[in-house]
Amino acid sequence: MFPPSPTIAIIGSGAVGGYYGARLAQHGHDVHFLLRTDYATVRDRGWIIRSRDGDFALHPAGDHAHASPATMPKVDLVVIALKATANDQFPALITPLLNDDTAILTLQNGLGNEEALANLFGPERILGGLAFTCINRTGPGEIHHMDYGLIRVGEFRGPSRSPRAAVIATLFNDSKIRCEVLDDLRYGRWEKLVWNIPFNGLGAALDLSTDRLLATETGVALVRQVMNEVIATAAAAGVELRPGTVEHQIGRTRTMGAYLSSMQIDRRTGRALEIEAIVGRPLAEARRLGVVTPAIAMINDLLTVVSMGR
Amino acid sequence: MFPPSPTIAIIGSGAVGGYYGARLAQHGHDVHFLLRTDYATVRDRGWIIRSRDGDFALHPAGDHAHASPATMPKVDLVVIALKATANDQFPALITPLLNDDTAILTLQNGLGNEEALANLFGPERILGGLAFTCINRTGPGEIHHMDYGLIRVGEFRGPSRSPRAAVIATLFNDSKIRCEVLDDLRYGRWEKLVWNIPFNGLGAALDLSTDRLLATETGVALVRQVMNEVIATAAAAGVELRPGTVEHQIGRTRTMGAYLSSMQIDRRTGRALEIEAIVGRPLAEARRLGVVTPAIAMINDLLTVVSMGR
Repeated sequence: MFPPSPTIAIIGSGAVGGYYGARLAQHGHDVHFLLRTDYATVRDRGWIIRSRDGDFALHPAGDHAHASPATMPKVDLVVIALKATANDQFPALITPLLNDDTAILTLQNGLGNEEALANLFGPERILGGLAFTCINRTGPGEIHHMDYGLIRVGEFRGPSRSPRAAVIATLFNDSKIRCEVLDDLRYGRWEKLVWNIPFNGLGAALDLSTDRLLATETGVALVRQVMNEVIATAAAAGVELRPGTVEHQIGRTRTMGAYLSSMQIDRRTGRALEIEAIVGRPLAEARRLGVVTPAIAMINDLLTVVSMGR
Repeated sequence: MFPPSPTIAIIGSGAVGGYYGARLAQHGHDVHFLLRTDYATVRDRGWIIRSRDGDFALHPAGDHAHASPATMPKVDLVVIALKATANDQFPALITPLLNDDTAILTLQNGLGNEEALANLFGPERILGGLAFTCINRTGPGEIHHMDYGLIRVGEFRGPSRSPRAAVIATLFNDSKIRCEVLDDLRYGRWEKLVWNIPFNGLGAALDLSTDRLLATETGVALVRQVMNEVIATAAAAGVELRPGTVEHQIGRTRTMGAYLSSMQIDRRTGRALEIEAIVGRPLAEARRLGVVTPAIAMINDLLTVVSMGR
């Protein structure tokens, strides 16, 4: 039985992990943060959060801030908010935190994160989550939560809904983080890829914000082509996205203004791009299933060129 | 008979037109400049040139600087160094400068400039030139000629060599501008496109310098594919580029370091991109001739998206 108030470890306390972890801690939960850059600041000064759902400062994390998993206790729930480019660190970072019943929730982008965790730690531990949010780190220990914030979670090993997933959703919802349990985690993953592959992929490759990508007929046609290729791949993988998904996603994006995708921001700030998780694995899945996806292949190539050889 | 020391009008006195015109004036030729941004500066103070072939300052241009073709005399030679995106201004800018025998030499990039001029002013007037150079404007009336400088010229209406082309080549060569007469202007145009389409096109679309484009296997493969598509299109158009062109161009580019193509610089500085001349017209030619060029088509689409909707 998953405890209603689990002890929690946040692995990867960047903007997303830091924000969600700080919200949980603010609402009385026992949250341990694994940090790198901001370790000393958060230990000594805590978090400073500006949020559209209310600003707050969190007391110094003290012994709840960690520079290494070696100092962290075993916990009931591990929340992973690492860049997917750091997945090779899963064994070293996660193994020390696990007791027999520890659940692992990955909030990472793209395909393959749950699979990698399941292979290492057993599928029964794993939940996936999709974070729909716009959060930036603005300084050491300082985070700006600008918009959205919804998390959708589900069990990796179906069915997606479970008592444990419901407890986790309640945990977030009681901590000012809207959270829903998905009917189908794979549906959620593919639906998010319909947006992520064109807007993260082309946004980072061309260094264009979403409004620029949609400002020309050519751009809209290209985005549509990519989305249709993702939808065809999802269908071949057994996930039928609902009709109208393309126009719904494009319409929704038009309301976002000059939005810079996370991958475009990563390019601008010289950080690693999550190409493999967001584009490479979906492309490999398309090839495995015999789906022709020239636009996704092109994006994968362009991102490879953009990301390497600095 | 083309005069050995013609009167000259430079139409489009940006970095390239300004540099070449100032070199010709420095060597005693009668050069009129049509200017826009730098008109008053050049009129009152002249040109200040830093060049790997020797720095010099040119006396104030005075009545040889013009803000409009209305104040310019008819000349023997019109040299066009406008952006190809300004070709709709040909009639207004050039017509007032023509006497019966005026020759028109376009140093612009890409395909279609000679054709546009020939349609307006008659093919017998037109010469084309390829400028291999690296020249930037560094301030009002200030130009930095960093490297290269060679011009290759030829008659638009074959044969490419003519007494007039020889006189123009001598004119440049006597003014510290290396100049060769081409055996075949069309060969020169297509050979230059083999470099320009991948490096200007991908460089501007992805905002990557030439070394970054060549830093990955994927990038090299993409550049090669584009070059091969250009070569196939040239062949279909009757221009057989010499074997080894692809590897020669790639090898030559590797020696250039972190080179920013003119189109990449235009993107960074918010100026119009010469998409139509450098990519669009070659692509249209490929389609007309039934050559399959998916990589060129992709570049054309990406540049369209990048250039519009600011």
